[in-house]
Amino acid sequence: MHLKLLKSNGLLFFLVTMTLSGFAQMGVAPGGSAVAATSEDSLLIRRLADTILTDGRTYGNLRLLTKTVGARLSGSAGYYKAEKWGQQVLQESSADKVWLQECMVPHWVRGGKDSASWVGGGGAAGGGSAAVGLDVLALGNSQGTGVKGIRAPVVLINNFDELEQRRDEVKGKIVFYNYPFNPLFVETFRAYGDAVRYRGAGASRAAKYGAVAVIVRSMSSSIDNTPHTGALMYNDSFPKIPAVAVGLRDADRLAARIPGHQIDVYLRTNAQMLPDTLAHNVIGELKGTEFPDQYITVGGHLDSWDPAEGAMDDGAGCVQSIEVLRALKAIGYQPRHTIRVVLFANEENGGRGGRKYAEAAKANNEHHLLGLESDNGGFTPRGFTLSLSEDKLAAIQPWVKLLKPYGVYELEHGGGGSDVNPMGRELGAVVGELRPDSQRYFEYHHARNDVLENVNKRELEMGAVNMAALIYLVDKYGL
Amino acid sequence: MHLKLLKSNGLLFFLVTMTLSGFAQMGVAPGGSAVAATSEDSLLIRRLADTILTDGRTYGNLRLLTKTVGARLSGSAGYYKAEKWGQQVLQESSADKVWLQECMVPHWVRGGKDSASWVGGGGAAGGGSAAVGLDVLALGNSQGTGVKGIRAPVVLINNFDELEQRRDEVKGKIVFYNYPFNPLFVETFRAYGDAVRYRGAGASRAAKYGAVAVIVRSMSSSIDNTPHTGALMYNDSFPKIPAVAVGLRDADRLAARIPGHQIDVYLRTNAQMLPDTLAHNVIGELKGTEFPDQYITVGGHLDSWDPAEGAMDDGAGCVQSIEVLRALKAIGYQPRHTIRVVLFANEENGGRGGRKYAEAAKANNEHHLLGLESDNGGFTPRGFTLSLSEDKLAAIQPWVKLLKPYGVYELEHGGGGSDVNPMGRELGAVVGELRPDSQRYFEYHHARNDVLENVNKRELEMGAVNMAALIYLVDKYGL
Repeated sequence: MHLKLLKSNGLLFFLVTMTLSGFAQMGVAPGGSAVAATSEDSLLIRRLADTILTDGRTYGNLRLLTKTVGARLSGSAGYYKAEKWGQQVLQESSADKVWLQECMVPHWVRGGKDSASWVGGGGAAGGGSAAVGLDVLALGNSQGTGVKGIRAPVVLINNFDELEQRRDEVKGKIVFYNYPFNPLFVETFRAYGDAVRYRGAGASRAAKYGAVAVIVRSMSSSIDNTPHTGALMYNDSFPKIPAVAVGLRDADRLAARIPGHQIDVYLRTNAQMLPDTLAHNVIGELKGTEFPDQYITVGGHLDSWDPAEGAMDDGAGCVQSIEVLRALKAIGYQPRHTIRVVLFANEENGGRGGRKYAEAAKANNEHHLLGLESDNGGFTPRGFTLSLSEDKLAAIQPWVKLLKPYGVYELEHGGGGSDVNPMGRELGAVVGELRPDSQRYFEYHHARNDVLENVNKRELEMGAVNMAALIYLVDKYGL
Repeated sequence: MHLKLLKSNGLLFFLVTMTLSGFAQMGVAPGGSAVAATSEDSLLIRRLADTILTDGRTYGNLRLLTKTVGARLSGSAGYYKAEKWGQQVLQESSADKVWLQECMVPHWVRGGKDSASWVGGGGAAGGGSAAVGLDVLALGNSQGTGVKGIRAPVVLINNFDELEQRRDEVKGKIVFYNYPFNPLFVETFRAYGDAVRYRGAGASRAAKYGAVAVIVRSMSSSIDNTPHTGALMYNDSFPKIPAVAVGLRDADRLAARIPGHQIDVYLRTNAQMLPDTLAHNVIGELKGTEFPDQYITVGGHLDSWDPAEGAMDDGAGCVQSIEVLRALKAIGYQPRHTIRVVLFANEENGGRGGRKYAEAAKANNEHHLLGLESDNGGFTPRGFTLSLSEDKLAAIQPWVKLLKPYGVYELEHGGGGSDVNPMGRELGAVVGELRPDSQRYFEYHHARNDVLENVNKRELEMGAVNMAALIYLVDKYGL
């Protein structure tokens, strides 16, 4: 689009062709304009937005985390650097108090570059006999192949029903699960929920029938060949066989070549699970003025998968949560309840940090109103889910009017993220999470391209604005 | 986020940590599921979504347009290649009829690489005397500097009020408008509307007081240094002085150095405006079964600025509009009214195509129900604006329930894009436009980075889904 000229009596008028009248209803004008909202709440929320969108640290903090700390899987050196980063930015953001909460975490290491290739069937184009490389990443928590690797015939399995039907064919073989990420789910997290079973349980289910390794089609909507890792969980009843995720283009090529051909796959992964080790949740607090012993928690998880920077998963949620505290303090808001920012340890391959936080709070008999999480990417916000009853959810619907100028249309019934859900179970707290637009999430999730450059500054900030607004409303009105 | 393990009696259960219950209310399950919607409209819209999200051509067509045609400013060879592309894809998309509508368009050429630098004030870092380069793009419709370029002292002007106050200082100088793109506008098109005056009218307003050229801070929310071009309009009463847009980082550096220093800027641009030339709107049609002489138009503009591929502005709107036709035909829907896809000529620096289409329709006494445009980027959809009265807008609000599963929450009062607005004025048609999320738009708008890689396939498709759904509803129920 562009600008448009109206010429009238020698005077020039420039009109923006985008119709502003429509947008005037959505965007709130900057302070001082005639469109400015009138109520105390909308003015306060506007002040939160103003500081986040102008003096905000959201994106700058994410740049530091991704570019100076980088990958930070539980137990890695990166994780301990991230703990220091978290303490420092919480202090710089004027938390009243910052501390570490000890937590034992699993310590899985990739141990070097994963590699894979296949031979047979004439090669990728059907005309050669050379080995064809596959872009793979070992799944988190998986055991490596040993230094010699594993070479075995591959069996294409489209889903678990087919595995059961063909259980007698997989002994000594490498099972290749090619279950698709269903594009018909508008909400991409549903496609993930549908497909992730193959990553999580596929290895042990194949091992049960004698398979020696598995390859899993990446859980992704991307159009590139980047493999997407993530945790598996072995069933202790069966051998712990190696497992990798493969990029989508390579998955398609391999799947196309298998029918009618004998194809061998070679895999080499170097992963191993070391003994549990000590890590920490990083916690910062704004002390409540009226109810200092009642808590509102907002957080994301500090750990991230090793092949990338964890910008979106979940650096975004960490810096948004910190920004909530910074913005409340920056505008001089004095919370009634104590507001805690928690950067959780070990979400990705154990969930220990979230459980530890809830257990410690329970042991201390703490009263928690809300645990709010951001762990769905730093994309443009659309809504929040909250674990409220229908009646209570109906009662807070007027808040939507206050959030809508910042892009949030819905306060829906639903749970929290995995780090705050233990607060619901252990403490009876309301839990919830930010729900940004999901279309781009699974292009970067657990993959090498989860880097700062794929997080948009404005979208990230708009998430922080809405989180700060919701925390303010809960602090003021309760839940 | 990741997956979570519950271990219970030796059995393994995998839970996706994202709470699906919340999303179940938003996403519509694929056909056959228990969550499937029940009414005829929601089923038909689901079929449109299914074909667009699986067999769709939206992204593939955009790849062809951007990678085989590329830039396509009015009068350029690229534009005529784009006309051919448009005819072909409309035919492949099973239009009943495809044709070209003649239209005279301006023919502005950049004429080579633009260059700029400044000297004085000790250089960018304050310590040297070497010339410091500026990343600039000549503004569309501007006159070049001539082969020798222009060197003159620069005057920093923050806004038009300051220009008026300092009118006596600009004679013989280069005026540098450093008006910011206001981050406080949540809806970024409002920041654009606020700032674009300097691009559109700044040159002539400075020329009035004797300035020899202008530099305009790019209208952008980006964090990089890419300059953003776009049209200016000269006021014929004053000299047509050269004008460029400068990248934001360079603008900041130059603005920081000017106070207290004498700084000269050198500009060289090679642009010129050639005589008007012949181009065409590209039109495809699905014939109506009940009211063949009543029209519903959906379109985007085919022309684009020369430094990039015009992927977002407005290749996205073109391929989405074509996809509406393809999808309706693919599911066997027979429209009651005639549905026209129009790829408009010359939106960027003249608006001739849109005016021509409306004038021709008026001359033919055509009855037009709706002109719908997509020209706000291929980002995740949020709503539509329509130029309906309050009563009529209220009457169609039940449609929101049908669109919401695909991400559209609002049918609001507002105008159309600049290509369909003449249909409102000339024909009394309702006009409207798709309103996607605006946070990323002005990072790519009229800049070198408006390329395919910055358009997300899923987001682009979701826009097409909602456009197809709205066109279907208007065809069925009228407006």
